[in-house]
Amino acid sequence: MEDLNIKKNWKSKLHEVIYEADTPNGKLFDIILILTIIASIILVMLESVESFDSEYHNFLNISEWIITILFTLEYIARIVSIKKPTSYIFSFYGVIDFLATIPKYLSLIFVGTHALVALRALRLLRVFRILKLTRYLGASITLAAALKASRIKIAVFLFVVLLLTVILGTVMYLIEGPENGFTSIPYSMYWAIVTLTTVGYGDISPHTPLGQFIASIVMILGYGIIAIPTGIVTSEMAKTNTKIQTNTQHCKFCGADTHLDNAEYCNKCGEKL
Amino acid sequence: MEDLNIKKNWKSKLHEVIYEADTPNGKLFDIILILTIIASIILVMLESVESFDSEYHNFLNISEWIITILFTLEYIARIVSIKKPTSYIFSFYGVIDFLATIPKYLSLIFVGTHALVALRALRLLRVFRILKLTRYLGASITLAAALKASRIKIAVFLFVVLLLTVILGTVMYLIEGPENGFTSIPYSMYWAIVTLTTVGYGDISPHTPLGQFIASIVMILGYGIIAIPTGIVTSEMAKTNTKIQTNTQHCKFCGADTHLDNAEYCNKCGEKL
Amino acid sequence: MEDLNIKKNWKSKLHEVIYEADTPNGKLFDIILILTIIASIILVMLESVESFDSEYHNFLNISEWIITILFTLEYIARIVSIKKPTSYIFSFYGVIDFLATIPKYLSLIFVGTHALVALRALRLLRVFRILKLTRYLGASITLAAALKASRIKIAVFLFVVLLLTVILGTVMYLIEGPENGFTSIPYSMYWAIVTLTTVGYGDISPHTPLGQFIASIVMILGYGIIAIPTGIVTSEMAKTNTKIQTNTQHCKFCGADTHLDNAEYCNKCGEKL
Amino acid sequence: MEDLNIKKNWKSKLHEVIYEADTPNGKLFDIILILTIIASIILVMLESVESFDSEYHNFLNISEWIITILFTLEYIARIVSIKKPTSYIFSFYGVIDFLATIPKYLSLIFVGTHALVALRALRLLRVFRILKLTRYLGASITLAAALKASRIKIAVFLFVVLLLTVILGTVMYLIEGPENGFTSIPYSMYWAIVTLTTVGYGDISPHTPLGQFIASIVMILGYGIIAIPTGIVTSEMAKTNTKIQTNTQHCKFCGADTHLDNAEYCNKCGEKL
Repeated sequence: MEDLNIKKNWKSKLHEVIYEADTPNGKLFDIILILTIIASIILVMLESVESFDSEYHNFLNISEWIITILFTLEYIARIVSIKKPTSYIFSFYGVIDFLATIPKYLSLIFVGTHALVALRALRLLRVFRILKLTRYLGASITLAAALKASRIKIAVFLFVVLLLTVILGTVMYLIEGPENGFTSIPYSMYWAIVTLTTVGYGDISPHTPLGQFIASIVMILGYGIIAIPTGIVTSEMAKTNTKIQTNTQHCKFCGADTHLDNAEYCNKCGEKL
Repeated sequence: MEDLNIKKNWKSKLHEVIYEADTPNGKLFDIILILTIIASIILVMLESVESFDSEYHNFLNISEWIITILFTLEYIARIVSIKKPTSYIFSFYGVIDFLATIPKYLSLIFVGTHALVALRALRLLRVFRILKLTRYLGASITLAAALKASRIKIAVFLFVVLLLTVILGTVMYLIEGPENGFTSIPYSMYWAIVTLTTVGYGDISPHTPLGQFIASIVMILGYGIIAIPTGIVTSEMAKTNTKIQTNTQHCKFCGADTHLDNAEYCNKCGEKL
Repeated sequence: MEDLNIKKNWKSKLHEVIYEADTPNGKLFDIILILTIIASIILVMLESVESFDSEYHNFLNISEWIITILFTLEYIARIVSIKKPTSYIFSFYGVIDFLATIPKYLSLIFVGTHALVALRALRLLRVFRILKLTRYLGASITLAAALKASRIKIAVFLFVVLLLTVILGTVMYLIEGPENGFTSIPYSMYWAIVTLTTVGYGDISPHTPLGQFIASIVMILGYGIIAIPTGIVTSEMAKTNTKIQTNTQHCKFCGADTHLDNAEYCNKCGEKL
Repeated sequence: MEDLNIKKNWKSKLHEVIYEADTPNGKLFDIILILTIIASIILVMLESVESFDSEYHNFLNISEWIITILFTLEYIARIVSIKKPTSYIFSFYGVIDFLATIPKYLSLIFVGTHALVALRALRLLRVFRILKLTRYLGASITLAAALKASRIKIAVFLFVVLLLTVILGTVMYLIEGPENGFTSIPYSMYWAIVTLTTVGYGDISPHTPLGQFIASIVMILGYGIIAIPTGIVTSEMAKTNTKIQTNTQHCKFCGADTHLDNAEYCNKCGEKL
């Protein structure tokens, strides 16, 4: 029974280190994890640069295997140390961890699957979970709150943009046609988005005078439309600011509750706060 | 006479289903309608992709006819069920519905009119009418109100942009000239809009040093000008926010409910709040 | 002496029609003037389109002469009807009017000066003077006031952008060099502005990895920098809004001066306003 | 001893002229310095324009030497006139001054180092130190304060953009691949930044339908994301405005001058205002 107890302890300790971040060991583990993920992503990047890959192929291959083994160990440890392994395996991060670990093994069996190693970049998303514990929390929350508060307005905005894209894409396909590069309606819609968002690659651009006239209207529209999400987010943030700025000082004498943050006397009745 | 009554009833029921959206049947009709419109637009899109069209031509053609017949039935039903058919036929949506239905029939008689099927995308605008009934109403109204409240400012802004476009287009035509791609003043104006809105396709760009210098000024101008619609919409939205935020003080005497936050007497009847 | 009087009257009446805009005749003159200017600019535009010019050359030439003669008459009338002609001739609009009228005459003597006809587009600026009399006045004033109030901030901002342009242009010239299209420092500075303002023509773009890395930083910088003029103008407009909203009602009893626009009783003491 | 005193005086006077800017001589020195820096930068620019350099090579070379000698004299004067020379030599401006002076001398010994003359553009940064003394001070402080107050939010924002760049760059590399111009992950990340910031050079753009679909999402994302820094800076500036706007009530008793607009008693000492 003691043996079982020790085993349980060992498991719960591992759980603490891997899943929690309040203890020194947990923090250390998180930092090492993030550094390993960053190292693994830099490896993937370097590998994708052909001139680098051809010169240091062996070094990259060995490093890849070391990273893959480390990720495998972490994956097993996560499964072992949790009470209900399926709750991890099928969670968002569980799937990403699996996708980040498996490609290297697959490349032994199937040719061409090696490129999937790049899926590992998705592991960076884990940063968000670890970030929860840092001093950036406050700022993220304000940002997230402002975005959340305006999510319906943003949805309406995105819907209008989508509608505009469909209509403009169709109209430009009719006007310009395949001979001017607008080969299909979906491709015209791609052009409409490239133009509305003011990105403007120039891989397709209107060639007929009428097309250029309509494109000009689309650009001015897109240029003006950007004011809308900006307005939404800004006014939402300004609102949040106002709420945060007020303090909760109440005058004991007259009950007035609007005071400057450093007020010492009530500005309505002169009573000491 | 009863026969007439039944006929009337049948008509008014159809009217309810088609034109109104409060009843379950009306809602169902609207949802089916929107789905059919979306399906018809996806068909048009797929048809415009040549590789897809050559493979599934028959399937696409038959589906087109089914959609066209459904649209025709809906169009007839709308005319039949309304008391004054012309009020529908010559309305905005009536014209769009007609334009969305007719091209397929025209393509039987005239060659080349088939492309007009794409006009069907305009039917998506009907979404706006149906949207009126959803919970997105509030957000759209706020957006629309902010835009409406600032419409004069936006008009002034658009006028200034237009003026800048004419002047810059002319100046660049004189400086760069046809040999550098600025083949005419309208085309130079197209360039001015592409640049002012920061889209920047690159299909025309200045080649002379003086042209590049003026283009640089235009870009910084355009970059700064974007602040203006943003400022207009944002401050308008912030204002709307402020109005919504105002307190909930109701005068017990006259019921007026718009008071300053620190008001002590009702500003409508002079009663103490 | 009466003759002189009549002459004076005739002059002062002409002055009223041409320079003022409160009288019906003055308004009519302004509207005809703007329409003539717009017509003259459309003529210049059409003339610059080669395919149009080659077909309707005679029509365009005759119309040009008619417009030029009308402009000449207006120019003479303006000089005659003013007491101190030099105050008009050397004014901003006087110079523009002269530049808009002279090119057609010059083209009789010198070959190649005909293109200067396009300078006529500058006459559109006169719209600003006439606009002063319309209901757009309010909106323009608000915009202009917001821009004026923030002119020092905007100057500081433009100065920082200029500084960034010089430094980035120089750095990119050193990194990329003439072999990658950055042929000189001024041309690199042009690239820096194209990139900072997110226009991105693509006529020059970095080719070395280091250049692309620095360009990425420049883009994110430019993307963030746009927040600054927007912030300046928006907060300035929000301030103006606040000021405009307050009315100037003073309570006769207690002197309180912050009331809602439609307040009827003082919200501090209950006195009728 | 008097000799020493004179020497000291001479040093301290030089120090006053070079390092301070309140005295007339100090101001004059600063203005001459800035003009010399601007002249030296214009020289570097002109030199980089090949057509200009080949014609006026001698003039440019001599001017360069004059500027270099002036910079050398200033550098020596700065070292001589300060009590602890190392505090200047290893300061930010000390290093820049050195880097701006040395290249011309190096070009005598090493071939190819001449291009480094362009580093001189960095001397423009000195403008910031001199600007401190001008009336632009207020505006810069407001801007800097708004940026500083929102630095954590901006950091979070930049981090999210970086994360998006890595993930989007990797995903697009997998989808488009080297055959469509996405030759490596770092290059794909460069594309992601070019697209997210709406610069859109068009030197790389997606060619597969899936790639174009994801690019469309990226663009709309980038288009929306710009609202965030704008929102941050704007709401921060609006906050600053609010603080500045507060009334000018001074307590007669304790002199405190920050009171709410409707305060009746001093919030520091309780005295009636």
